[in-house]
Amino acid sequence: KEGREWDVIDAVRVPVVRLKFGEVAESSKVVILPVCRAEEKDKEVLEAPWECSSEGEFGVVVAEKGWKRWVVLPGWEPVVGLGKGAVVVSFSDARVLPWKVNKWYKEEPILVVADRSKKEVAADDGFYLAAVEGGGLGFKVVRGSALKETGVKESLGTVVMIVRPPRDDTDDQLSEEDWE
Amino acid sequence: KEGREWDVIDAVRVPVVRLKFGEVAESSKVVILPVCRAEEKDKEVLEAPWECSSEGEFGVVVAEKGWKRWVVLPGWEPVVGLGKGAVVVSFSDARVLPWKVNKWYKEEPILVVADRSKKEVAADDGFYLAAVEGGGLGFKVVRGSALKETGVKESLGTVVMIVRPPRDDTDDQLSEEDWE
Repeated sequence: KEGREWDVIDAVRVPVVRLKFGEVAESSKVVILPVCRAEEKDKEVLEAPWECSSEGEFGVVVAEKGWKRWVVLPGWEPVVGLGKGAVVVSFSDARVLPWKVNKWYKEEPILVVADRSKKEVAADDGFYLAAVEGGGLGFKVVRGSALKETGVKESLGTVVMIVRPPRDDTDDQLSEEDWE
Repeated sequence: KEGREWDVIDAVRVPVVRLKFGEVAESSKVVILPVCRAEEKDKEVLEAPWECSSEGEFGVVVAEKGWKRWVVLPGWEPVVGLGKGAVVVSFSDARVLPWKVNKWYKEEPILVVADRSKKEVAADDGFYLAAVEGGGLGFKVVRGSALKETGVKESLGTVVMIVRPPRDDTDDQLSEEDWE
Protein backbone atom coordinates (compact mmCIF):
# COMPACT_ATOMS: atom_id res chain seq x y z
CA LYS A 1 0.00 0.00 0.00
CA GLU A 2 1.01 3.62 0.16
CA GLY A 3 2.36 3.91 -3.33
CA ARG A 4 3.39 0.29 -3.43
CA GLU A 5 3.49 -1.44 -6.80
CA TRP A 6 1.12 -4.34 -6.97
CA ASP A 7 1.05 -6.86 -9.74
CA VAL A 8 -2.54 -7.86 -10.05
CA ILE A 9 -3.39 -11.02 -11.89
CA ASP A 10 -6.66 -11.17 -13.67
CA ALA A 11 -10.03 -9.61 -12.99
CA VAL A 12 -10.39 -11.35 -9.66
CA ARG A 13 -7.28 -9.56 -8.56
CA VAL A 14 -4.90 -11.86 -6.85
CA PRO A 15 -2.10 -9.55 -5.83
CA VAL A 16 1.43 -10.80 -6.35
CA VAL A 17 3.72 -8.88 -4.07
CA ARG A 18 7.42 -8.99 -3.51
CA LEU A 19 8.23 -8.61 0.14
CA LYS A 20 10.78 -5.90 0.82
CA PHE A 21 13.60 -6.31 3.29
CA GLY A 22 12.41 -5.02 6.60
CA GLU A 23 8.91 -4.63 5.33
CA VAL A 24 7.22 -6.48 8.12
CA ALA A 25 7.54 -3.05 9.21
CA GLU A 26 5.96 -0.56 6.91
CA SER A 27 2.43 -0.96 8.03
CA SER A 28 1.29 -0.33 11.56
CA LYS A 29 -0.16 -3.78 11.77
CA VAL A 30 1.33 -7.18 11.21
CA VAL A 31 -0.41 -10.49 10.78
CA ILE A 32 0.76 -13.87 12.05
CA LEU A 33 -0.48 -16.80 10.02
CA PRO A 34 0.03 -20.56 10.28
CA VAL A 35 2.26 -21.97 7.54
CA CYS A 36 1.81 -25.29 5.75
CA ARG A 37 4.45 -26.91 3.59
CA ALA A 38 3.25 -27.78 0.11
CA GLU A 39 5.33 -30.96 0.21
CA GLU A 40 3.01 -32.28 2.90
CA LYS A 41 0.24 -32.17 0.30
CA ASP A 42 -3.17 -31.36 1.73
CA LYS A 43 -2.38 -32.81 5.15
CA GLU A 44 -1.23 -29.63 6.82
CA VAL A 45 -3.75 -27.43 5.04
CA LEU A 46 -6.50 -29.53 6.55
CA GLU A 47 -4.87 -29.63 9.99
CA ALA A 48 -3.62 -26.07 10.47
CA PRO A 49 -5.48 -24.02 13.08
CA TRP A 50 -8.63 -22.55 11.68
CA GLU A 51 -9.09 -19.67 14.01
CA CYS A 52 -6.47 -17.27 15.31
CA SER A 53 -7.54 -14.33 17.41
CA SER A 54 -5.63 -11.38 18.77
CA GLU A 55 -5.60 -10.99 22.52
CA GLY A 56 -4.97 -8.03 24.75
CA GLU A 57 -2.88 -4.93 24.37
CA PHE A 58 0.16 -6.68 22.98
CA GLY A 59 -1.76 -8.38 20.20
CA VAL A 60 -0.82 -11.85 21.36
CA VAL A 61 -2.07 -14.30 18.76
CA VAL A 62 -4.08 -17.15 20.17
CA ALA A 63 -4.69 -20.11 17.87
CA GLU A 64 -7.41 -22.62 18.53
CA LYS A 65 -4.70 -25.26 18.64
CA GLY A 66 -0.96 -25.55 18.69
CA TRP A 67 0.99 -25.24 15.47
CA LYS A 68 4.70 -25.30 14.69
CA ARG A 69 5.15 -23.05 11.68
CA TRP A 70 4.25 -19.37 11.57
CA VAL A 71 5.02 -16.39 9.42
CA VAL A 72 4.66 -12.67 10.05
CA LEU A 73 3.39 -10.64 7.11
CA PRO A 74 2.79 -6.92 6.79
CA GLY A 75 -0.83 -5.91 7.32
CA TRP A 76 -1.65 -5.98 3.63
CA GLU A 77 -5.26 -5.36 2.86
CA PRO A 78 -6.13 -8.80 1.47
CA VAL A 79 -4.51 -10.44 4.47
CA VAL A 80 -5.88 -8.22 7.21
CA GLY A 81 -9.40 -8.85 5.97
CA LEU A 82 -9.16 -12.60 6.43
CA GLY A 83 -11.05 -14.28 9.22
CA LYS A 84 -11.25 -17.92 10.14
CA GLY A 85 -9.54 -20.30 7.78
CA ALA A 86 -6.65 -18.12 6.69
CA VAL A 87 -3.54 -20.09 5.93
CA VAL A 88 -0.19 -19.70 4.19
CA VAL A 89 1.24 -22.43 1.99
CA SER A 90 4.97 -22.36 1.28
CA PHE A 91 6.08 -23.61 -2.13
CA SER A 92 9.69 -24.15 -3.07
CA ASP A 93 9.15 -22.49 -6.43
CA ALA A 94 6.48 -20.82 -8.50
CA ARG A 95 5.84 -23.63 -10.95
CA VAL A 96 2.60 -24.30 -9.12
CA LEU A 97 1.13 -21.09 -10.48
CA PRO A 98 -1.16 -21.37 -13.48
CA TRP A 99 0.50 -18.61 -15.47
CA LYS A 100 3.89 -18.31 -17.03
CA VAL A 101 6.35 -15.86 -15.70
CA ASN A 102 9.74 -15.11 -17.11
CA LYS A 103 12.82 -16.18 -15.26
CA TRP A 104 11.79 -16.16 -11.66
CA TYR A 105 9.25 -18.88 -11.59
CA LYS A 106 11.71 -21.71 -11.09
CA GLU A 107 14.11 -19.81 -8.94
CA GLU A 108 12.07 -18.35 -6.15
CA PRO A 109 10.08 -19.81 -3.32
CA ILE A 110 6.62 -18.32 -2.90
CA LEU A 111 4.01 -18.09 -0.23
CA VAL A 112 0.39 -18.50 -1.21
CA VAL A 113 -2.10 -16.94 1.17
CA ALA A 114 -5.42 -18.75 0.99
CA ASP A 115 -8.82 -18.59 2.61
CA ARG A 116 -10.00 -22.07 3.55
CA SER A 117 -13.44 -20.74 4.45
CA LYS A 118 -14.04 -20.15 0.74
CA LYS A 119 -13.75 -23.55 -0.82
CA GLU A 120 -16.38 -23.23 -3.47
CA VAL A 121 -15.01 -22.82 -6.99
CA ALA A 122 -17.10 -19.74 -7.60
CA ALA A 123 -15.38 -17.56 -10.18
CA ASP A 124 -13.94 -18.64 -13.52
CA ASP A 125 -11.18 -16.15 -13.12
CA GLY A 126 -10.58 -16.86 -9.46
CA PHE A 127 -7.59 -18.87 -8.25
CA TYR A 128 -7.87 -21.85 -5.96
CA LEU A 129 -5.68 -24.29 -4.09
CA ALA A 130 -6.46 -27.67 -5.58
CA ALA A 131 -5.02 -31.12 -4.96
CA VAL A 132 -3.00 -32.72 -7.72
CA GLU A 133 -3.79 -36.39 -8.07
CA GLY A 134 -0.68 -38.50 -7.85
CA GLY A 135 1.58 -35.55 -8.45
CA GLY A 136 4.72 -34.81 -6.54
CA LEU A 137 3.63 -31.26 -5.93
CA GLY A 138 0.72 -32.14 -3.71
CA PHE A 139 -1.38 -29.29 -4.91
CA LYS A 140 -1.18 -26.26 -7.08
CA VAL A 141 -2.85 -22.97 -7.74
CA VAL A 142 -5.54 -23.51 -10.35
CA ARG A 143 -7.84 -21.18 -12.20
CA GLY A 144 -11.56 -21.52 -11.47
CA SER A 145 -12.32 -22.12 -15.13
CA ALA A 146 -9.86 -25.02 -15.27
CA LEU A 147 -11.39 -26.64 -12.20
CA LYS A 148 -14.90 -26.22 -13.54
CA GLU A 149 -13.91 -27.87 -16.81
CA THR A 150 -12.93 -30.97 -14.90
CA GLY A 151 -16.05 -30.89 -12.79
CA VAL A 152 -14.33 -29.83 -9.56
CA LYS A 153 -16.63 -27.68 -7.45
CA GLU A 154 -14.75 -27.59 -4.20
CA SER A 155 -11.16 -26.53 -3.65
CA LEU A 156 -8.99 -26.44 -0.55
CA GLY A 157 -9.38 -22.67 -0.46
CA THR A 158 -9.45 -19.46 -2.45
CA VAL A 159 -6.10 -17.82 -3.13
CA VAL A 160 -6.04 -14.24 -1.89
CA MET A 161 -2.43 -13.30 -2.36
CA ILE A 162 0.94 -14.51 -3.57
CA VAL A 163 4.11 -13.35 -1.84
CA ARG A 164 7.59 -13.37 -3.35
CA PRO A 165 10.74 -13.19 -1.22
CA PRO A 166 12.73 -10.00 -0.74
CA ARG A 167 15.59 -9.33 -3.15
CA ASP A 168 18.52 -6.96 -3.14
CA ASP A 169 17.90 -5.67 -6.64
CA THR A 170 14.32 -4.60 -6.81
CA ASP A 171 14.71 -2.07 -9.59
CA ASP A 172 14.28 -4.45 -12.43
CA GLN A 173 11.54 -6.45 -10.90
CA LEU A 174 8.76 -5.03 -13.01
CA SER A 175 10.52 -5.15 -16.36
CA GLU A 176 11.78 -8.61 -15.66
CA GLU A 177 8.35 -10.07 -15.38
CA ASP A 178 6.45 -11.28 -18.34
CA TRP A 179 2.94 -12.15 -17.42
CA GLU A 180 1.19 -14.47 -19.75
CA LYS B 1 17.77 1.65 19.72
CA GLU B 2 17.90 4.54 17.30
CA GLY B 3 17.32 7.25 19.84
CA ARG B 4 14.82 5.22 21.76
CA GLU B 5 14.43 5.91 25.46
CA TRP B 6 15.19 2.87 27.53
CA ASP B 7 14.49 2.59 31.20
CA VAL B 8 17.19 0.38 32.54
CA ILE B 9 16.74 -1.20 35.92
CA ASP B 10 19.77 -1.89 37.93
CA ALA B 11 23.32 -2.77 37.04
CA VAL B 12 22.30 -5.97 35.33
CA ARG B 13 20.29 -3.86 32.97
CA VAL B 14 16.88 -5.27 32.47
CA PRO B 15 15.38 -2.92 29.96
CA VAL B 16 11.80 -1.83 30.54
CA VAL B 17 10.36 -0.66 27.26
CA ARG B 18 7.00 0.71 26.31
CA LEU B 19 5.94 -0.63 22.96
CA LYS B 20 4.89 2.08 20.54
CA PHE B 21 1.87 1.79 18.31
CA GLY B 22 3.02 0.32 15.04
CA GLU B 23 6.43 -0.37 16.40
CA VAL B 24 6.58 -3.98 15.43
CA ALA B 25 7.71 -2.03 12.56
CA GLU B 26 10.60 0.22 13.29
CA SER B 27 13.32 -2.31 13.16
CA SER B 28 14.09 -4.34 10.10
CA LYS B 29 13.71 -7.54 12.02
CA VAL B 30 10.92 -8.92 14.11
CA VAL B 31 10.93 -11.81 16.51
CA ILE B 32 8.14 -14.29 17.14
CA LEU B 33 8.14 -15.81 20.59
CA PRO B 34 5.90 -18.31 22.35
CA VAL B 35 3.71 -16.76 25.05
CA CYS B 36 2.81 -18.30 28.42
CA ARG B 37 0.08 -17.01 30.67
CA ALA B 38 1.23 -16.27 34.19
CA GLU B 39 -2.08 -17.56 35.53
CA GLU B 40 -1.09 -21.04 34.39
CA LYS B 41 1.78 -20.84 36.87
CA ASP B 42 4.90 -22.65 35.76
CA LYS B 43 3.00 -25.16 33.63
CA GLU B 44 3.24 -23.30 30.35
CA VAL B 45 6.75 -22.02 30.99
CA LEU B 46 7.91 -25.59 31.31
CA GLU B 47 5.92 -26.76 28.28
CA ALA B 48 6.43 -23.97 25.76
CA PRO B 49 8.62 -24.85 22.77
CA TRP B 50 12.26 -24.57 23.61
CA GLU B 51 13.66 -24.05 20.17
CA CYS B 52 12.33 -21.85 17.40
CA SER B 53 14.33 -21.46 14.22
CA SER B 54 13.83 -19.25 11.21
CA GLU B 55 13.44 -21.02 7.90
CA GLY B 56 13.95 -19.88 4.35
CA GLU B 57 13.65 -16.53 2.66
CA PHE B 58 10.41 -15.55 4.30
CA GLY B 59 11.69 -16.12 7.80
CA VAL B 60 9.06 -18.72 8.61
CA VAL B 61 9.38 -19.58 12.28
CA VAL B 62 9.57 -23.29 12.97
CA ALA B 63 9.05 -24.36 16.55
CA GLU B 64 10.14 -27.76 17.80
CA LYS B 65 6.52 -28.38 18.74
CA GLY B 66 3.12 -26.83 18.29
CA TRP B 67 2.06 -23.91 20.47
CA LYS B 68 -1.07 -21.80 20.60
CA ARG B 69 0.07 -18.40 21.78
CA TRP B 70 2.60 -16.21 20.00
CA VAL B 71 3.65 -12.61 20.03
CA VAL B 72 5.61 -10.53 17.54
CA LEU B 73 8.12 -8.13 19.04
CA PRO B 74 10.45 -5.65 17.38
CA GLY B 75 13.97 -6.94 16.93
CA TRP B 76 15.20 -5.38 20.14
CA GLU B 77 18.78 -6.22 20.97
CA PRO B 78 18.13 -8.26 24.14
CA VAL B 79 15.48 -10.28 22.32
CA VAL B 80 17.30 -10.88 19.04
CA GLY B 81 20.24 -12.30 20.94
CA LEU B 82 18.21 -15.04 22.56
CA GLY B 83 18.63 -18.62 21.47
CA LYS B 84 16.96 -21.75 22.73
CA GLY B 85 14.70 -21.32 25.72
CA ALA B 86 13.38 -17.84 24.98
CA VAL B 87 9.86 -17.32 26.22
CA VAL B 88 7.41 -14.52 26.95
CA VAL B 89 5.21 -14.54 30.04
CA SER B 90 2.12 -12.34 30.00
CA PHE B 91 1.11 -10.82 33.33
CA SER B 92 -2.16 -8.97 33.86
CA ASP B 93 -0.38 -6.25 35.81
CA ALA B 94 3.04 -5.21 36.99
CA ARG B 95 2.65 -6.13 40.65
CA VAL B 96 4.87 -9.12 40.00
CA LEU B 97 7.85 -6.84 39.58
CA PRO B 98 10.19 -6.46 42.55
CA TRP B 99 10.34 -2.70 42.41
CA LYS B 100 7.75 -0.03 43.02
CA VAL B 101 6.58 2.12 40.21
CA ASN B 102 4.21 5.00 40.44
CA LYS B 103 0.76 4.70 39.05
CA TRP B 104 1.09 2.23 36.25
CA TYR B 105 2.02 -0.88 38.07
CA LYS B 106 -1.53 -1.95 38.85
CA GLU B 107 -3.05 -0.68 35.66
CA GLU B 108 -1.03 -2.15 32.89
CA PRO B 109 -0.41 -5.64 31.66
CA ILE B 110 3.22 -6.48 31.02
CA LEU B 111 5.18 -9.00 29.07
CA VAL B 112 8.29 -10.48 30.64
CA VAL B 113 10.83 -11.87 28.20
CA ALA B 114 12.88 -14.60 29.84
CA ASP B 115 15.66 -16.96 28.94
CA ARG B 116 14.93 -20.44 30.24
CA SER B 117 18.40 -21.63 29.30
CA LYS B 118 19.78 -19.48 32.11
CA LYS B 119 18.15 -20.86 35.21
CA GLU B 120 20.99 -20.43 37.63
CA VAL B 121 20.54 -17.59 40.08
CA ALA B 122 23.89 -16.11 39.23
CA ALA B 123 23.81 -12.37 39.92
CA ASP B 124 22.58 -10.62 43.04
CA ASP B 125 21.28 -7.81 40.92
CA GLY B 126 19.85 -10.02 38.18
CA PHE B 127 16.13 -10.66 37.84
CA TYR B 128 14.63 -14.10 37.63
CA LEU B 129 11.28 -15.78 37.08
CA ALA B 130 10.59 -17.66 40.27
CA ALA B 131 7.64 -19.71 41.43
CA VAL B 132 5.53 -18.37 44.28
CA GLU B 133 4.52 -21.08 46.69
CA GLY B 134 0.77 -21.13 47.16
CA GLY B 135 0.36 -17.72 45.68
CA GLY B 136 -2.35 -16.75 43.24
CA LEU B 137 0.18 -15.18 40.94
CA GLY B 138 1.96 -18.37 40.07
CA PHE B 139 5.31 -16.75 39.86
CA LYS B 140 6.93 -13.38 39.94
CA VAL B 141 10.01 -11.54 38.94
CA VAL B 142 12.50 -11.75 41.80
CA ARG B 143 15.88 -10.24 42.40
CA GLY B 144 18.81 -12.62 42.54
CA SER B 145 19.76 -11.40 46.02
CA ALA B 146 16.28 -12.18 47.34
CA LEU B 147 16.38 -15.69 45.91
CA LYS B 148 19.82 -16.31 47.33
CA GLU B 149 18.70 -15.21 50.79
CA THR B 150 16.07 -17.94 50.75
CA GLY B 151 18.50 -20.51 49.41
CA VAL B 152 17.02 -20.71 45.92
CA LYS B 153 19.72 -21.46 43.38
CA GLU B 154 17.65 -22.28 40.36
CA SER B 155 14.93 -20.17 38.77
CA LEU B 156 12.61 -20.75 35.84
CA GLY B 157 14.71 -18.38 33.79
CA THR B 158 16.59 -15.10 33.67
CA VAL B 159 14.54 -12.01 32.83
CA VAL B 160 15.99 -10.19 29.84
CA MET B 161 13.37 -7.56 29.18
CA ILE B 162 10.05 -6.15 30.33
CA VAL B 163 7.59 -4.79 27.80
CA ARG B 164 4.78 -2.34 28.54
CA PRO B 165 1.80 -1.88 26.22
CA PRO B 166 1.50 1.01 23.76
CA ARG B 167 -0.34 4.12 24.94
CA ASP B 168 -1.79 7.13 23.17
CA ASP B 169 -0.08 9.67 25.38
CA THR B 170 3.57 8.86 25.43
CA ASP B 171 4.82 12.34 26.26
CA ASP B 172 4.53 12.04 29.97
CA GLN B 173 5.74 8.51 30.22
CA LEU B 174 9.12 9.36 31.61
CA SER B 175 8.03 11.94 34.14
CA GLU B 176 5.19 9.75 35.25
CA GLU B 177 7.46 7.01 36.34
CA ASP B 178 9.03 6.93 39.69
CA TRP B 179 11.53 4.18 39.96
CA GLU B 180 12.40 3.03 43.41
